[in-house]
Amino acid sequence: MENGETKTVPKSWAMVGGDGPRSYAQNSSYQRGVLDVANELMNEGIKETLAFKSPCSDSSNICTFRIADFGCSAGPNTFLAMEKIIEAVEQKYHAQFQNSPPLELQVFFNDVTTNDFNTLFKTLPFYQKYFAAGVPGTFYGRLFPKSTLHLACSSYSLHWLSKVPEEVVDTKSPAWNKGSIQCSGTAKEVAKAYSAQFKTDMDNFLNARAQEIIGGGLMVIIIPGLPDGILMSQTGAGIFNDFFGSCLIDMAKLGVISEEKVDSFNLPLYYSSAKELEEIIKNNGHFCIERLNMLNYPMMKRKLDVQFHISQFRAIFQGLVEAHFGRDDVDKIFEYLAKKLAENYDSVFNVAKHQHVVEHFILLKRNIN
Amino acid sequence: MENGETKTVPKSWAMVGGDGPRSYAQNSSYQRGVLDVANELMNEGIKETLAFKSPCSDSSNICTFRIADFGCSAGPNTFLAMEKIIEAVEQKYHAQFQNSPPLELQVFFNDVTTNDFNTLFKTLPFYQKYFAAGVPGTFYGRLFPKSTLHLACSSYSLHWLSKVPEEVVDTKSPAWNKGSIQCSGTAKEVAKAYSAQFKTDMDNFLNARAQEIIGGGLMVIIIPGLPDGILMSQTGAGIFNDFFGSCLIDMAKLGVISEEKVDSFNLPLYYSSAKELEEIIKNNGHFCIERLNMLNYPMMKRKLDVQFHISQFRAIFQGLVEAHFGRDDVDKIFEYLAKKLAENYDSVFNVAKHQHVVEHFILLKRNIN
Repeated sequence: MENGETKTVPKSWAMVGGDGPRSYAQNSSYQRGVLDVANELMNEGIKETLAFKSPCSDSSNICTFRIADFGCSAGPNTFLAMEKIIEAVEQKYHAQFQNSPPLELQVFFNDVTTNDFNTLFKTLPFYQKYFAAGVPGTFYGRLFPKSTLHLACSSYSLHWLSKVPEEVVDTKSPAWNKGSIQCSGTAKEVAKAYSAQFKTDMDNFLNARAQEIIGGGLMVIIIPGLPDGILMSQTGAGIFNDFFGSCLIDMAKLGVISEEKVDSFNLPLYYSSAKELEEIIKNNGHFCIERLNMLNYPMMKRKLDVQFHISQFRAIFQGLVEAHFGRDDVDKIFEYLAKKLAENYDSVFNVAKHQHVVEHFILLKRNIN
Repeated sequence: MENGETKTVPKSWAMVGGDGPRSYAQNSSYQRGVLDVANELMNEGIKETLAFKSPCSDSSNICTFRIADFGCSAGPNTFLAMEKIIEAVEQKYHAQFQNSPPLELQVFFNDVTTNDFNTLFKTLPFYQKYFAAGVPGTFYGRLFPKSTLHLACSSYSLHWLSKVPEEVVDTKSPAWNKGSIQCSGTAKEVAKAYSAQFKTDMDNFLNARAQEIIGGGLMVIIIPGLPDGILMSQTGAGIFNDFFGSCLIDMAKLGVISEEKVDSFNLPLYYSSAKELEEIIKNNGHFCIERLNMLNYPMMKRKLDVQFHISQFRAIFQGLVEAHFGRDDVDKIFEYLAKKLAENYDSVFNVAKHQHVVEHFILLKRNIN
């Protein structure tokens, strides 16, 4: 099968690797907080909906349970989330089958080929309760043989599109996103193009997973999104992105970076509403929605310092910015952003007036054909 | 389960990563040649001994066939070998079951946690015919759930011991290997200690694989070794290692590196005879020997230039030398070796008088319990 992401996703869209001060591993405390909140929902959801058919799915008296994490990155969060999932799976298994042979767990950590798997592997917990494997490749295509996964999860990954929709950087298209670097929600044609790309990507994701997950198997998705009726440009994250866009335009005007490059730069991110997600999953038809909740995680309501924001933002976007603007301009861009942010802190982080992005927690069950 | 190799194997025993001029990927042409020779034997062996029970091993109408490569390193050889194995497996499958659904192949590439999996993943063939995964950890312990592999292979890896036997660097032991850095075969107690370590390691390897490979499943092993009755010190490779040892002693005398470090340095390598391998496998009892051949690969009989030798040697041993002598001395050591080798070329490479290390080709079948 074809290793698709090299065609559609630039090479450096992985989070910053390693474990240095700029790494995603050291700058993902927000995502960690989301996981803590999600944990309870997940634990409860798995216990209520996971059903083992028999202690041993095949003819041998051995039980292998396979879990895959789609979009694992290289940070410690991925192991913490897995730990919690495994706890829930084992509790359910032992509750259903007393005195049964122990479950043997195989866990697959997936991310794009350019993800830092070396760091991921070196930081695997020493006393892990499972057999670990890394799986490189885009999750918008097939990654596993048919019907071999029992549980899948994907946290903070599916809002990354496989690519920026072509129309939004096409100066001749009615969907050209002039003067903006994101799907702010205000320009209708732009929003339509982003939404169509998201639908295509989600559909590809669900179709691939439908092949890989056994009938009755579960999938947990945590994805940032918007409350119904709220536009991206009204949220703190959206305002931050718009501010970043305005900094890029400033830098182009000052002649520091190329204007053409700023015009063709858009974030391959889409924040969806619960309603939109529900529609996509129902239309896809392979999975039944067991849970669809909005997580209420209050961190963005606190006031945070500029350096913290820049660090978190850079750990995620450095690769993307570098791929587009070139290595020489990366430092300049983030330094300019930090300087401008310090000067405009109160307007950018006028927390009282902002809406907040939310996290959608989705628990799906693969239909039995 | 426990991630064992961090306890017994120093961190840098992996081959040199990346794809630069010093990488193993760029310096493993000898191993490549061996594979070409082994290919025919492997192809024939797989076709004759592999037996599919039914086109679909489980109740669904889908066939997943799982292959694992133990000690894959990061070079291109691992993909070439896999390609050949898959060809043989598919030919046998289609010969046995006409009009059967296509086989879905999952291939696991295993090596120690410090192996360069990032390079391995980035160099995966674009149109690979299988779902790929990387599995970090020592193959002297368990790495996969029970009975989940159909075919295993290990090429040029099992002559690496899990550790240098303690006695050979213990100045108070009768097995102290004074003045030598390898198991040359001349000192009986040293040879006994190395042989015991090899037996323990092989036994651990076979026991772990016996758990993981299904009854009737195959294992292909290619391992360098010695012809019966030949000592390591009589072979070209052994003479080269002894020469390397004498260079280290020279450098210690010149005060360039520490004498104590030279005394405590031994190569964790063991070259076994076919007889010894046969005994270990038979005593282990989990596998039946389908083939045990000696490959005749003539490359070492050619005269080669100093730089080629140093490059190949360094790609393999740099990590080990660095872990023992420290980063500062690595360049000095390999530069001194190159200089001395140029001066003594004819005596070190007196090809006409040398014996040759051989490659053992072993095809095993997992007993059905």
